Amino acid sequence: MTCEFICVGTELLLGNILNTNAKYLSEKCAEFGISVFYQTVVGDNPERLEETVHLALSRSDCIIFSGGLGPTTDDLTKETVAKAFGLKLVEDARAKEELLARMNHYGRKITENNFKQALIPEGQKALYNHHGTAPGILIEKDGKTAILLPGPPRELVPMFEEYCIPYFESRSNQKIVSVMVKMIGIGESEAAARIEDLILNSTNPTVAPYAKTTQVHLRVTAMAENEEAGKALIKPVLEQIQVELGEYIYSMDENDDIEDVIVRDLEEKHLYISFAESFTGGMVASRLINVPGASNVLKESLVTYCDEAKMNRLFVDPKTINKHSAVSFECAKEMAEGVIRATGCDVGVATTGYAGPDGEEAGHIFFAVSFKGKTVVKEMNLAFDRNLVREAAVIRVLALVHQILKDA
Amino acid sequence: MTCEFICVGTELLLGNILNTNAKYLSEKCAEFGISVFYQTVVGDNPERLEETVHLALSRSDCIIFSGGLGPTTDDLTKETVAKAFGLKLVEDARAKEELLARMNHYGRKITENNFKQALIPEGQKALYNHHGTAPGILIEKDGKTAILLPGPPRELVPMFEEYCIPYFESRSNQKIVSVMVKMIGIGESEAAARIEDLILNSTNPTVAPYAKTTQVHLRVTAMAENEEAGKALIKPVLEQIQVELGEYIYSMDENDDIEDVIVRDLEEKHLYISFAESFTGGMVASRLINVPGASNVLKESLVTYCDEAKMNRLFVDPKTINKHSAVSFECAKEMAEGVIRATGCDVGVATTGYAGPDGEEAGHIFFAVSFKGKTVVKEMNLAFDRNLVREAAVIRVLALVHQILKDA
Repeated sequence: MTCEFICVGTELLLGNILNTNAKYLSEKCAEFGISVFYQTVVGDNPERLEETVHLALSRSDCIIFSGGLGPTTDDLTKETVAKAFGLKLVEDARAKEELLARMNHYGRKITENNFKQALIPEGQKALYNHHGTAPGILIEKDGKTAILLPGPPRELVPMFEEYCIPYFESRSNQKIVSVMVKMIGIGESEAAARIEDLILNSTNPTVAPYAKTTQVHLRVTAMAENEEAGKALIKPVLEQIQVELGEYIYSMDENDDIEDVIVRDLEEKHLYISFAESFTGGMVASRLINVPGASNVLKESLVTYCDEAKMNRLFVDPKTINKHSAVSFECAKEMAEGVIRATGCDVGVATTGYAGPDGEEAGHIFFAVSFKGKTVVKEMNLAFDRNLVREAAVIRVLALVHQILKDA
Repeated sequence: MTCEFICVGTELLLGNILNTNAKYLSEKCAEFGISVFYQTVVGDNPERLEETVHLALSRSDCIIFSGGLGPTTDDLTKETVAKAFGLKLVEDARAKEELLARMNHYGRKITENNFKQALIPEGQKALYNHHGTAPGILIEKDGKTAILLPGPPRELVPMFEEYCIPYFESRSNQKIVSVMVKMIGIGESEAAARIEDLILNSTNPTVAPYAKTTQVHLRVTAMAENEEAGKALIKPVLEQIQVELGEYIYSMDENDDIEDVIVRDLEEKHLYISFAESFTGGMVASRLINVPGASNVLKESLVTYCDEAKMNRLFVDPKTINKHSAVSFECAKEMAEGVIRATGCDVGVATTGYAGPDGEEAGHIFFAVSFKGKTVVKEMNLAFDRNLVREAAVIRVLALVHQILKDA
């Protein structure tokens, strides 16, 4: 099946917003093995929209629209697509009911315009919206499919998951089962090289790498007659990935970030953690605090930017700083050990380094994790700009914490 | 002039990357008053690319391409566009020289394929690339313009600024002058309502609001015969915006974030700042540390997540916490005052609150700034999810710091 997207909205043409919908829909189609050859952005203009719809219908099996389903006269997607398919719009009772309930709930006045949102092309399927007023629509006619989704990503994404994934599964008579393998500490090209054979030659499941700034994710996707069969297809591939890349994997759960895994691990082991951050300035601690439950593992943390704070708060020996400077193996070690002494935590983590942007040493960093009387110190040269140095360092610090906890 | 974009790349169709180029180019065109009616994404496929180019040439004056200028046989943009314009490719001496120099510098081996990147359609303009190997191209023929830019944003953006902005200015015989007014503490719709007349009725300069998650930016853009004349056109509009919205404006410099303004202000006044962060967990401090020069104004900072840390580090009275809880006006006040006592800084900033996601109080926060013996405490209810609560709070805390420093 070939699919193309038409994203409708002047705010995209004006550059007011990023087209995250196109990326999301592209990823999903890639998972399903659906070929996407075109993506078009067009404004709320009836002639240009109509021309774009006809062109898409002439060359693709399925068109996914986003945007233009609002209540104003500017919103034309539904009307234009219905016309292209030769369908007339009729009121959908449930859509109207839900619209009224939602408007009531928010205490908004209902105008005649609003009822436009309860209209659906005759005989087609309404995709009810639990996050906004505009229902989506699924049209199947003359061998073509059109899926109309609302523009806001927080409405589009859940609607796609609720209606479109089952639709594509039922069309192919297959269930899609997918696992995201998340890794830190290895680059995309090295990870890909180690499992090159899997990436190039696997067809079911497929294995696709997704590079993030500081991580590598691998999506393993199988299509099968049911979930069990899909999982069975995925299992040996996951095992092979585990063999090749196990040391870098921190999670196989889509919703996990590395800090989630760390907080869970600390909670299970009844451990407290504290940070002594110099050039990361609180970024590591704040990543952990993003996780619900962080208060069970983090009581306090310190940002010790100047030398005095390192000495006074963390008991770093002035001689260490004089001899090796504050950006040194020795200082990082004393900071990590000192924050345990200062806060009474079990795991002490420290960062010190030159974030740049200027100076020959920019990007030269040390970080240390102290646990059970043993301190591991890492030295790195990160050749990015100031903010990227920090971000990259935060991830590497968290990766070391995770590693040490896993091995404990 | 009408313009459309053709972004070439399979990685866009697979959802591996976000199309930030389209957003950037759209914003720029909007500034120049150029109408963009279509954006298309298409893969590295010769037939589909050719069809897309012909369609675009039939309906727009100018087409901007991104991507597909690399050295591999997959990269087809230049060849396809040259063919559509009936132009043959010839070697550009400077492009070849720069290519060789760059490959040498990186110690890379040069293959026959690489020389493909030094080819330019005959009689057209090469746009030399200071950030990568692929030169861009500007074609003007038969009343149509095509601009070919490399795909990576860190190459595309500087190339656009160096060559395309002067090109559009020279075409219109006008200089574009633009100022970004940055505000915090007011919503987009209220800001827009207060200067509705300016937004709707100004044509030169134009006034366009850009909503960010937690800020409002207004771009004021004038076209004039030269920079002075452009600035003169903008001046009365900026004055009017200042009258209506002055209290929310923190900068009129494109490159400023609020933390830049704060660090500059603290440096000028020779003041030190420290933070005592509870639910923001280090996020406020780390925002400040993003600014080069932060070490001149921040020596240390504390994350006091648990009640004991608030009492031990910040001298918060246990009775205060017992009576009012740690999330209270009183506790925030004592934390801000306590961090001055604990660190010897001039400006003490504190945050305490419920980030959620659960509980009736989720999003209920207090923050305080203490300076020169006076402490201002703010209470807010932020109805977002856990991460958004924090982000929104960080901005509001910084806005309060900025306000207090400005008034000092």
